[in-house]
Amino acid sequence: MSQQSCSADQLAQLFGPNTTNAQAAATLICDQFAAVVRNFTDTGYAIDNTYLLFSAYLVFSMQLGFAMLCAGSVRAKNTMNIMLTNVLDAAAGGIFYYLFGFAFAWGSPSNGFIGKHYFGLTDLHSDNLDYSNFLYQWAFAIAAAGITSGSIAERTQFVAYLIYSSFLTGFVYPVVSHWFWSPDGWASAFKKSDLLLSTGVIDFAGSGVVHMVGGVAGLWGALIEGPRIGRFDHAGRAVALRGHSASLVVLGTFMLWFGWYGFNPGSFNKILVAYDSGNKYGQWSAVGRTAVTTTLAGSTAALTTLFGKRLISGHWNVTDVCNGLLGGFAAITAGCSVVEPWAAIVCGFVASLVLIACNKLAEMARFDDPLEAAQLHGGCGAWGVLFTALFAKKEYVLQVYQGDQSRPHGLFMGGGWNLLGAHVIQILVIVGWVSATMGPLFWGLKKLKLLRISSEDELAGMDLTRHGGFAYAYEDDETQKHGIQLRKVEPNASTPTTDGGL
Amino acid sequence: MSQQSCSADQLAQLFGPNTTNAQAAATLICDQFAAVVRNFTDTGYAIDNTYLLFSAYLVFSMQLGFAMLCAGSVRAKNTMNIMLTNVLDAAAGGIFYYLFGFAFAWGSPSNGFIGKHYFGLTDLHSDNLDYSNFLYQWAFAIAAAGITSGSIAERTQFVAYLIYSSFLTGFVYPVVSHWFWSPDGWASAFKKSDLLLSTGVIDFAGSGVVHMVGGVAGLWGALIEGPRIGRFDHAGRAVALRGHSASLVVLGTFMLWFGWYGFNPGSFNKILVAYDSGNKYGQWSAVGRTAVTTTLAGSTAALTTLFGKRLISGHWNVTDVCNGLLGGFAAITAGCSVVEPWAAIVCGFVASLVLIACNKLAEMARFDDPLEAAQLHGGCGAWGVLFTALFAKKEYVLQVYQGDQSRPHGLFMGGGWNLLGAHVIQILVIVGWVSATMGPLFWGLKKLKLLRISSEDELAGMDLTRHGGFAYAYEDDETQKHGIQLRKVEPNASTPTTDGGL
Amino acid sequence: MSQQSCSADQLAQLFGPNTTNAQAAATLICDQFAAVVRNFTDTGYAIDNTYLLFSAYLVFSMQLGFAMLCAGSVRAKNTMNIMLTNVLDAAAGGIFYYLFGFAFAWGSPSNGFIGKHYFGLTDLHSDNLDYSNFLYQWAFAIAAAGITSGSIAERTQFVAYLIYSSFLTGFVYPVVSHWFWSPDGWASAFKKSDLLLSTGVIDFAGSGVVHMVGGVAGLWGALIEGPRIGRFDHAGRAVALRGHSASLVVLGTFMLWFGWYGFNPGSFNKILVAYDSGNKYGQWSAVGRTAVTTTLAGSTAALTTLFGKRLISGHWNVTDVCNGLLGGFAAITAGCSVVEPWAAIVCGFVASLVLIACNKLAEMARFDDPLEAAQLHGGCGAWGVLFTALFAKKEYVLQVYQGDQSRPHGLFMGGGWNLLGAHVIQILVIVGWVSATMGPLFWGLKKLKLLRISSEDELAGMDLTRHGGFAYAYEDDETQKHGIQLRKVEPNASTPTTDGGL
Repeated sequence: MSQQSCSADQLAQLFGPNTTNAQAAATLICDQFAAVVRNFTDTGYAIDNTYLLFSAYLVFSMQLGFAMLCAGSVRAKNTMNIMLTNVLDAAAGGIFYYLFGFAFAWGSPSNGFIGKHYFGLTDLHSDNLDYSNFLYQWAFAIAAAGITSGSIAERTQFVAYLIYSSFLTGFVYPVVSHWFWSPDGWASAFKKSDLLLSTGVIDFAGSGVVHMVGGVAGLWGALIEGPRIGRFDHAGRAVALRGHSASLVVLGTFMLWFGWYGFNPGSFNKILVAYDSGNKYGQWSAVGRTAVTTTLAGSTAALTTLFGKRLISGHWNVTDVCNGLLGGFAAITAGCSVVEPWAAIVCGFVASLVLIACNKLAEMARFDDPLEAAQLHGGCGAWGVLFTALFAKKEYVLQVYQGDQSRPHGLFMGGGWNLLGAHVIQILVIVGWVSATMGPLFWGLKKLKLLRISSEDELAGMDLTRHGGFAYAYEDDETQKHGIQLRKVEPNASTPTTDGGL
Repeated sequence: MSQQSCSADQLAQLFGPNTTNAQAAATLICDQFAAVVRNFTDTGYAIDNTYLLFSAYLVFSMQLGFAMLCAGSVRAKNTMNIMLTNVLDAAAGGIFYYLFGFAFAWGSPSNGFIGKHYFGLTDLHSDNLDYSNFLYQWAFAIAAAGITSGSIAERTQFVAYLIYSSFLTGFVYPVVSHWFWSPDGWASAFKKSDLLLSTGVIDFAGSGVVHMVGGVAGLWGALIEGPRIGRFDHAGRAVALRGHSASLVVLGTFMLWFGWYGFNPGSFNKILVAYDSGNKYGQWSAVGRTAVTTTLAGSTAALTTLFGKRLISGHWNVTDVCNGLLGGFAAITAGCSVVEPWAAIVCGFVASLVLIACNKLAEMARFDDPLEAAQLHGGCGAWGVLFTALFAKKEYVLQVYQGDQSRPHGLFMGGGWNLLGAHVIQILVIVGWVSATMGPLFWGLKKLKLLRISSEDELAGMDLTRHGGFAYAYEDDETQKHGIQLRKVEPNASTPTTDGGL
Repeated sequence: MSQQSCSADQLAQLFGPNTTNAQAAATLICDQFAAVVRNFTDTGYAIDNTYLLFSAYLVFSMQLGFAMLCAGSVRAKNTMNIMLTNVLDAAAGGIFYYLFGFAFAWGSPSNGFIGKHYFGLTDLHSDNLDYSNFLYQWAFAIAAAGITSGSIAERTQFVAYLIYSSFLTGFVYPVVSHWFWSPDGWASAFKKSDLLLSTGVIDFAGSGVVHMVGGVAGLWGALIEGPRIGRFDHAGRAVALRGHSASLVVLGTFMLWFGWYGFNPGSFNKILVAYDSGNKYGQWSAVGRTAVTTTLAGSTAALTTLFGKRLISGHWNVTDVCNGLLGGFAAITAGCSVVEPWAAIVCGFVASLVLIACNKLAEMARFDDPLEAAQLHGGCGAWGVLFTALFAKKEYVLQVYQGDQSRPHGLFMGGGWNLLGAHVIQILVIVGWVSATMGPLFWGLKKLKLLRISSEDELAGMDLTRHGGFAYAYEDDETQKHGIQLRKVEPNASTPTTDGGL
């Protein structure tokens, strides 16, 4: 709001003694202006909350995207299992983020490392830390957990899943988001003073904070579990264990694309911020630009992957293109608000190559991640953090993060080495923190024999042995009996229909 | 808007006779303020309509959720049938709600029992009864019909479906919504005077108005039709007739979750309402809180169901968890705007137990509802109505429903027994009204032999006999001929390809 | 904004010489009002960009709808292929629309035929040609390409797809949108002067510009390719080649319905436009009415198709109802903002008959369009253009398009023949332009043997031969080995798992 306050005293003096009741006239006028200011304040809250809430709903819809992407990417026999983990990411995440996570991440004032207010959403008192923001941040937290669940799919005990997911959503991720996003965080670019390397980390929507955290956690999980049975043959060569439904993969990918418009442009939190009041260019325009850079990075990565994989494998593969697309999104997420559209194309192009290289590397190392989540979110996420340090444009950095003309920005844009330094620190710190917390957790679970399912269960599929039956039954007995030749698909799993009461 | 009107006469007097042209100066200034007020009015309409329209779109997306949930929960042979009913809920609902339903529900002034204006959307003249509101209310009406279609799935004649769905959307549901939501309704908490038991019914987004109506209608439909063939064996024991696709169930559940953010927070209709102008706390914040209570109730119910069913059945079942989640949502819908987040957790916890108990009861009574819709929407909906009467917080009730400090609120929050009394009346009235209208309708259809399909059709599946063929064909003839061993799934249904003209 | 500017000089004169400092007092007051005006400007940008961006996200979600609709409508063996084309519509469309398309469509000032500014989003300087608008228009462009891909499904080489899609998104469609939608376009109803036949073409959201363009392009593609093998038997009778999943068809249809609320009401671009400031009726209300006409047209078309096809084929067919619904939407798209709700019902009713007739005609002409896209988007789109010329209401035309009382409107509403004349010209011009550009393109591709796949590939399915494998694998080897009798579905396709590096 550019409105100056109206001073009744000053105005009364200007009217002077010849005015019948100068003070009353001035007060009447200034009271009117004061009411106008209050109305603008109300209006701003209504607009910004509308913007943030609908962005939060979009980010939440990514959980549907993850569920379908994961389901389609695993074998049919583990579909119930993976989908249950996705539903529980959201549900358990809701409870744990309410109880602890939000407080750790956003409790202010803090010591710079971890927040300590707002447990159970009590005593919210800050302007932009209201319920809408809780919902928005919760949707981010469950996205991180969703990434990790892909890496360890098809071989993990359900109880291990419940434990790591709560720990990640309630503690590991919130702490990282506090460091880089809270105005109190030690490495945040939103700090008022003492910025890390005079710049802080510009990880706008979380290539590092969300994607690398989920990816590195998945890396440790998948490493400690080891590959699925049959993923590498006796000679150590990779064998594709194809997912059971490309339709679900494409459905999930499009939902993620849709939701990413909440994830990236939504990270502004507010849309009614004038950079130069009365001028058409303001945060509303930066929000639009962020949606455009996101679109271009993903599109470029998809096309690059299409042709790249065609060269390598000889065919046009839709699931590879989907992963390439998502890699482009994961990479642009850090810099989406501070780079030019043309730079987003560079970002997406390189992200595709990073993903292809990481997948090659994973295969050589006999590393098995059924969703390529560690490679995609970890690898492309890390590239995105570096990319931002190279291409962040001064004008945009100053608008989004404020500060004076000396504020560091992208190395290739003439902004010096500071931002790159800060971003290298971010990468190291995230890898270190997640490794130091999630690594021991997965290791401990393994030692306690709570991590991996038995090989019998793995071969039979978890749906049959743990989740009450196969996910699909396209044909059934009655049909068969009546002369239409269809074969029964549903196995003879004992379904809990006659259980004798509570 | 807190803006007082600017009185040019008063201001002119204050300027007094020494001012050259006091009246003209005052008029110039006050005209400016009048224009400001008009601008705020326009701005408010734009914001509130944006908020309401996008909420309506979200609620509409629940119809996609219902369609997928229903499709996945029935056997493959009835997929075309159930999906057609879902498409027609929306389409026939659109026509009937336009012609009659909206008028019955919102026509004002009314006699308190049924509205009688706005048939065919003519003569809309009230501030918040514009087109956006029609769209929003239509999306609610079709949700009620969607609930019922689940209860009678897999055995109902299509013509019966068309009849009850039109009747429910065009008459039964609109009348109930008039009673409890219209400012003219006899039991509405929005009435200006003569509130039922001095409080009116606080069913904010419709645990009673929508979910119980749909659930009770389904109860009668399923009771009168009787169970599907094979649902109970010769000894009367329940046999699970598993749905054909858990992926569709999860897809539908997530879409419903997504859409519920339109259903519950959207029920405020307006977001730009200041509770205390110029202060950060206003309806925008209450909207956000409503999204949070909704999330927490569903999450808690999902987790409770997960562990509850694990104890009972011995496995982790994703479709059960999905139903538990939806039960939590159905329950919080009444009180979402007037309870604290911690109370929402209580709500979800109990909702899960209510659903498990209702399902147990249904099994003992040999009641067959393929979607558990009567149990879920009826049972958890009724719990939600009671819950609100127990936990509604005074401060929130006063903000959302206005009134003075003596207004009754939740019993456990010190608000007295009145609200509980009103809510018990609501439950009895809804059960009575829906039973008195839908019961005879289903009974009449049965007597006219229009209700249930033949047992031959039921065994063969309705898709083959009524809807032109099986929903899926994963393999085909040409493939088979060319050496890849795949078996034909599509039955030899006669498809209407050579029909001789109109 | 209805705010008049506040003249400090005028106000100072009114205060007169007896006021101590009349000029300063007047300046203080008028500066306050100037700040208020700037605040309203900012607020308006924030609201309108929020509205446009979320509308754009909805339109984008239609791409998910197209993907699922197409996937479900083709045989399982071509699922990977068709979904890949849908992903690439969005991705390649993103790049080409960024580089060229947006400039051709919206570059201003232009010569009336093609724009020539804003290539690569450089030098955006117009109020409503910002990034949000780019995103919105891109989502429209890829919808046009998505329509065409349906027409030529199941038999087209992938490289042909890449070529025509880029050409359509980057050139053919943008030029058409320039003609009818840019304020500079020769036939635009938004022109300031020299309107075509004194009216310009009222194709509000693109029954002609989007749907006919996509449909006519598809018509030529499908005509030049010829029907799929087996679509017509030796006697020339049509044989249904059923799609492989009705669930995906319904899922896609509902997503398209959901997205259409961005397509039609979103085409206003701005929601904060007062028709009569301070009054409840403004563009926000027209936006709501547009959502209602859209809903009613689709609903009516769905119901008409239900009963129409029941009469013709003897069963209730959900996929036919879905197509009817979409035909109703395609038809109302042109006139959605300028007709009464009752007229929308007429529109939908006729659209359903048009679609049935077009399909009959196609069958008689042995024309094979697997998605009925040419019939649906071309036929119903053309009807929608004519419908608008008949039923456009004067009051609404003046509000949406401005102009004086003599402005032509719908023939049946007393608005004269001019609009009908202009709309007949639109139909002829679109058919001519798309035929002249896309026809030779498809013809050339055919001559270069780049258009159609070999009959071996067509019989085996493109997924196996071109896209790395079958889309589905519901059963797998390991399961089989362990005693559960499930048959392997996945063919022995060589999957690229041991490829020797880049």
